[in-house]
Amino acid sequence: MKNETYAALMAHVRQTVALSQISGLIGWDQETMMPRGAATQRGEWSGALESVIHERRTDPRIGDWLAALEGTDLDEVARANLRHIRRSYDRNTKVPADLAAEIARVTSVAQGIWAEARRNDDFAAFAPTLKQVLELRRQEATALSDGDDPYDALLDDYEPGMTGARLDQLLGNLRGGLVRLRDRIRGSGRVVPQLDRDFDHDLQMKLSHELATSFGYDWNRGRLDKAVHPFSSGSGNDCRITTRVEADNPFNCFYSTIHEVGHACYEQNIDPDYLLTPLGRGVSMGVHESQSRIYENQLGRSRAFTGYLFGRMRDHFGDFGIANEDDFHAVVNAVGQGHIRTEADEVQYNLHILLRYELEREMILGRLEVDDLEEAWNSRFERDFGFAVDRPANGVLQDVHWSVGLFGYFPTYSLGNIYAGMLFKALKRDVPDLDSALARGDTSGATAWLKDRVQRHGGLYEPAKVISQAAGQAISEKPLLAYLEEKFSAIYDL
Amino acid sequence: MKNETYAALMAHVRQTVALSQISGLIGWDQETMMPRGAATQRGEWSGALESVIHERRTDPRIGDWLAALEGTDLDEVARANLRHIRRSYDRNTKVPADLAAEIARVTSVAQGIWAEARRNDDFAAFAPTLKQVLELRRQEATALSDGDDPYDALLDDYEPGMTGARLDQLLGNLRGGLVRLRDRIRGSGRVVPQLDRDFDHDLQMKLSHELATSFGYDWNRGRLDKAVHPFSSGSGNDCRITTRVEADNPFNCFYSTIHEVGHACYEQNIDPDYLLTPLGRGVSMGVHESQSRIYENQLGRSRAFTGYLFGRMRDHFGDFGIANEDDFHAVVNAVGQGHIRTEADEVQYNLHILLRYELEREMILGRLEVDDLEEAWNSRFERDFGFAVDRPANGVLQDVHWSVGLFGYFPTYSLGNIYAGMLFKALKRDVPDLDSALARGDTSGATAWLKDRVQRHGGLYEPAKVISQAAGQAISEKPLLAYLEEKFSAIYDL
Repeated sequence: MKNETYAALMAHVRQTVALSQISGLIGWDQETMMPRGAATQRGEWSGALESVIHERRTDPRIGDWLAALEGTDLDEVARANLRHIRRSYDRNTKVPADLAAEIARVTSVAQGIWAEARRNDDFAAFAPTLKQVLELRRQEATALSDGDDPYDALLDDYEPGMTGARLDQLLGNLRGGLVRLRDRIRGSGRVVPQLDRDFDHDLQMKLSHELATSFGYDWNRGRLDKAVHPFSSGSGNDCRITTRVEADNPFNCFYSTIHEVGHACYEQNIDPDYLLTPLGRGVSMGVHESQSRIYENQLGRSRAFTGYLFGRMRDHFGDFGIANEDDFHAVVNAVGQGHIRTEADEVQYNLHILLRYELEREMILGRLEVDDLEEAWNSRFERDFGFAVDRPANGVLQDVHWSVGLFGYFPTYSLGNIYAGMLFKALKRDVPDLDSALARGDTSGATAWLKDRVQRHGGLYEPAKVISQAAGQAISEKPLLAYLEEKFSAIYDL
Repeated sequence: MKNETYAALMAHVRQTVALSQISGLIGWDQETMMPRGAATQRGEWSGALESVIHERRTDPRIGDWLAALEGTDLDEVARANLRHIRRSYDRNTKVPADLAAEIARVTSVAQGIWAEARRNDDFAAFAPTLKQVLELRRQEATALSDGDDPYDALLDDYEPGMTGARLDQLLGNLRGGLVRLRDRIRGSGRVVPQLDRDFDHDLQMKLSHELATSFGYDWNRGRLDKAVHPFSSGSGNDCRITTRVEADNPFNCFYSTIHEVGHACYEQNIDPDYLLTPLGRGVSMGVHESQSRIYENQLGRSRAFTGYLFGRMRDHFGDFGIANEDDFHAVVNAVGQGHIRTEADEVQYNLHILLRYELEREMILGRLEVDDLEEAWNSRFERDFGFAVDRPANGVLQDVHWSVGLFGYFPTYSLGNIYAGMLFKALKRDVPDLDSALARGDTSGATAWLKDRVQRHGGLYEPAKVISQAAGQAISEKPLLAYLEEKFSAIYDL
């Protein structure tokens, strides 16, 4: 009887998971393959599919099935499935249908308004829309929070179990260390060489393919295409990645590829038994980002692996004006001075995130209004980066996230980096001869460790549990700071 | 009140149409982009989506809405929508759910069994599966036919309004004319030159792009990719085409492209007001094939257009061993001797279809059993083509259709050719200087005529009506035969 109820619940959920994977494919197609003229029609597709998915997620039978099953004697996998289904059901039923529909409606047009405002460097043109989006998300947070911290209610959708109070600590500690390190780098006076030639488009893509293979990407269950903003998509046996090609900046192409391979390998390496169940995907945005970041940075931008990459680039492109592996490592890891988050180096990236986190948390808690946002952004940017924002497109208008309603999402980027720092510390301890393998382009020891400790579990454990279990310590920003200190001290002779 | 009911019905249907268009995109992706390892997971997606679509198509509210609306005072468009919705609702509700599910289950595995049997030239390995499929489709036909001709019930899904009795006449007349023409060609002794070199892959695709543009394909609402079996897909503002490339047979690439452009332009040219409604797609398989065939054959393989293509091929590939436009026209239209339908020339193609039609009609009516099918195929093939089948892969196992349950589909290919013959006769009368335009690669006069007379109407009229209205005559095989007579008499000096 109990098993029949569980089977009925899981059959229902399995179809819903399949439909949401279809929704993912539609999104991938939209960014890579869709003809331009199809945009409006595509909007109707997404609306129709989302409404079917929402109906299935709020089906009252789910409540009955859960009530009959919770507290009964079930195995670990079943308990984990119930945990995910309960969270999804509660979230979806707590938000009134008309509010959910209004959020969907407003955010679907807000992105276009944001893009236009950014093009025109005109925050005032975006402000009324952002007010609407913010107000709707505040209402949603109130509906979800049962009187608790409303920011936590939004955060919980991206990083279950994490709270604003805990983030304030973690990210606050991180800021101090990062600012000090960045200031020492600036003070070092060391000038890093730069690339000053163009790199063939097709050869960049060819080397990207090679790099994806080096990091264990399974081509039988994925593919690589180009997109304006690189992303990965899909799960199970269909995990696709994208990258972009700029003639004068091949690292953008290569490290976008490696980053997305990290995301995709997480999905590809989940226990196949979990396919098409709530456990069959990465457990949170933060854990996902920990995988993309450790592939990209701790492994891909290491002295050992960049030595290998230097050789491969010379094989493909000939001499490109960088004298040796040490210089190449410095070029790849150069700490610059810029306004744009997505172009930031490993040291300053999290400072960008901290700024956004601080502002969005205050907005959701009602302590900062949209009318004061631009000024708040500019003054805090100068505080953290030491120079001024020159125009809105380089400041408050640079990211798409808030326009599409993503409040509570930004801090998961920094959590990912913090998790990656913890995992890398443990990985170095456990994997023998890591550097000599990476120097040969062999990541298999490292990626096998990540698969075993993190990736294969999918949604089985809560995010904090899977990370602290794998790293053998509680969540802490310290390993990330220590890693950055060590790495950049070497590069900048600190 | 009436308008509210109609609006409620159409809102429901609009979402269902959107979901079925998503299903189309998934199919396109499967044939062009999907990583190989994703096949099984993809099957679950399709199953989930089809079950949602089926539920929506059999929603009892549709029956209530239809009952309230039918016979009331509605405009032509609304009446046409009701006609489509009624047909779909009746078909979907008449077939018991467990039979529909069983058909889906059996046909989803049957294709693999057929492919394996074809690889091994082993009809006996496929026969048990084909028996199952046939028996299920017979049951479905019985459920649908209300005691009338069961074949008509299946045919009606692909070509509404057409009957087996009418097909027996039309296709019977066609056979006589085609056999006589083919025999005269064989007797003529004229030997057509052949291509004997390879043609660059990328240049074939480049010229394919050019040809699609020449035939009015709108790239803003479509794209061209490669597929093992070329097809077109989508509707409205997202109509995609595929082609294939063989080094020694560029015509396969070019004429597959033009054929699929015919299908896609039909969809692209439908009145945009019909988007996401039952009128927003080609009205039947036969009318669809009439557009692909008239683009490919009557226009694309005409003396005038092949003269233009000859020049473009020489521009792209240099001298490729064909001396002049007349020889080139003969090469493009060569009447050969082969077993395979998809490689057949314009004269013999319909003989392949007639054979299949005859056999499948007898099977559905219970006059021919699967155990006798191979022998029946072989003896009738020899009767119609004058030589023997050498092995099952070149005979009864060559087509996928029956394995996936497509009974009643084959004759729509020949209906498409018959319709194309009728349309071309009228088009030649109405479009001045057609040949001189085609000789410049300009198809705009012809395609504008087709858009105005056929394509823009989408599903507004029944198939026979839209064709006879455009052609100014009742459905008849005579114009097709007359066109073939005239064309091949010139090529083969008959």
